[in-house]
Amino acid sequence: MSEFDLIARIRARFPSPAAPELGIGDDGALLAPRPGHLLAVSTDSLLAGVHFRPDDPPADIGHKAAAVNLSDLAAMAAEPAACLLALSLPGADTGWLDGFLDGLGGLARRHGMALVGGDTTRGPLAVTLTVLGWVPPGQALRRDAARPGDEVWVTGTLGDAAAALALGEAAEPWLLARLRRPEPRCAAGLALRGLAHAAIDLSDGLLGDLGHVLAASGCGADLELADLPASPALCAAVPEAETRWRYQLCGGDDYELAFTAPPERREAVSAALAAQGVAATRIGRIDLRPGLRLYRPDGRLWPPPARAWQHFADPP
Amino acid sequence: MSEFDLIARIRARFPSPAAPELGIGDDGALLAPRPGHLLAVSTDSLLAGVHFRPDDPPADIGHKAAAVNLSDLAAMAAEPAACLLALSLPGADTGWLDGFLDGLGGLARRHGMALVGGDTTRGPLAVTLTVLGWVPPGQALRRDAARPGDEVWVTGTLGDAAAALALGEAAEPWLLARLRRPEPRCAAGLALRGLAHAAIDLSDGLLGDLGHVLAASGCGADLELADLPASPALCAAVPEAETRWRYQLCGGDDYELAFTAPPERREAVSAALAAQGVAATRIGRIDLRPGLRLYRPDGRLWPPPARAWQHFADPP
Repeated sequence: MSEFDLIARIRARFPSPAAPELGIGDDGALLAPRPGHLLAVSTDSLLAGVHFRPDDPPADIGHKAAAVNLSDLAAMAAEPAACLLALSLPGADTGWLDGFLDGLGGLARRHGMALVGGDTTRGPLAVTLTVLGWVPPGQALRRDAARPGDEVWVTGTLGDAAAALALGEAAEPWLLARLRRPEPRCAAGLALRGLAHAAIDLSDGLLGDLGHVLAASGCGADLELADLPASPALCAAVPEAETRWRYQLCGGDDYELAFTAPPERREAVSAALAAQGVAATRIGRIDLRPGLRLYRPDGRLWPPPARAWQHFADPP
Repeated sequence: MSEFDLIARIRARFPSPAAPELGIGDDGALLAPRPGHLLAVSTDSLLAGVHFRPDDPPADIGHKAAAVNLSDLAAMAAEPAACLLALSLPGADTGWLDGFLDGLGGLARRHGMALVGGDTTRGPLAVTLTVLGWVPPGQALRRDAARPGDEVWVTGTLGDAAAALALGEAAEPWLLARLRRPEPRCAAGLALRGLAHAAIDLSDGLLGDLGHVLAASGCGADLELADLPASPALCAAVPEAETRWRYQLCGGDDYELAFTAPPERREAVSAALAAQGVAATRIGRIDLRPGLRLYRPDGRLWPPPARAWQHFADPP
């Protein structure tokens, strides 16, 4: 199979939900900007052996590539529009490619995201997706917008993916699905326009990711460990509270949103997210004192556990 | 050095020439669309061992990553605005990184292209750049717009990079620079708005790339081998005409533009490109008969040599 056959295969398998001005097959794609909106753009790579195992089901890899990128648009409150796929493949394995495209395309279509271009290369298995979306000026949820007095919220539950990673195939299917088939919180992000101040998606763990919000916003936060939302599956698989907190704070791959909002919008936030079928939990409060303080159920401070996932950290 | 130190290093080294609404450091970047323009977007990866040697000077790798992507915008007649960098690095080598960013940033700045976001991962050395630009509706140069009767043009000279690749360090510096520091034809692409019909950038060799234009446009072309523009350095290094033609037709990495334009615009095309300091040469003509026919100086047909570079081709 030639590179051009490969591109034709991708093109055939990926009909655009909303046709761009010019899609796959030219030097670049052309998109008409949405009037009255800013362009939001983000890129994320998934590498075999780092972000997934080379023998993971290809549909899971495709799904996750779309999910982690859509999650970035969700955290900006941007509506997905289009994506470009840079794919490095060790060989022209059409079965693998079809599975991958099914996973990527299935999630992309559900979010109205067209594949409009990309690049294919023979090399180590790696996927880089670039996503484009639209958000009205002033409505994007930025990391630097948390204000003292804001409450800290998270969507869904935390720590499921970390537990699945730790337990491996012994994890129950729901936990494994949380790791391999995360659902990006796009609807929640859009619902939070005009309600939330700051937001970030949880890719590297709450501790590190919320830390970025605090650093960018020049504030700190108190968090209640007892309030960290845990799924029944996580509680069953990891009955010991401190281990669970560690997964919830430091485990990556949750792809939930952490956001801040003023207390007077508490009801409005709950209602807006409930209307999208998304649970959200208040877990703490922003204040001016720098740093992140974790309170145990007995009121004592809990020393922050090991930091979040970092690609270039020296080995511990 | 942590991932965040790495990002801070990139950010510090890469001041934006034209500030986006929101740049590096959030979940995504925000850009204000240019009124009355379409968004042009393209992505291209460079992999160590495929597109460059791991021990190539990092500034050359950075330059080339920017050049091959800017070249795609040039071929769309789009004006560069911003880019996102997905970088996979085996380790946190700050000397390598600084050199790479200098090469990337130097060329990006010359073309008014801001780095607005990206992703860094530890993995095999690979660079994926996504570039964004603006072009007025109806003015993009598409692959499917060649018309019978159009003349086929190329900018600059062909085959220099292929000769440099074949000769290695024995090649003279100018030829090596053509391989390692290609200059994307952005000014030429913009100058061709309203003049050229179809265009493509020459990344995989004229034979293959012009073949895409012919396939997309549903036509064929006659080319005169004697008219393929050859640099003095190429003629000196490769005196034998047939070998030279092979480099010019099948060698990749030229990053010149091939385009078609109606004969009545011949003077206007020459003048518009000359005003940008870009030489351009007519090398043939589009007609309705499918395929690409190569004519020797004596008028005989020359059988097309081995096809252009293909990533997933079976070994010959």
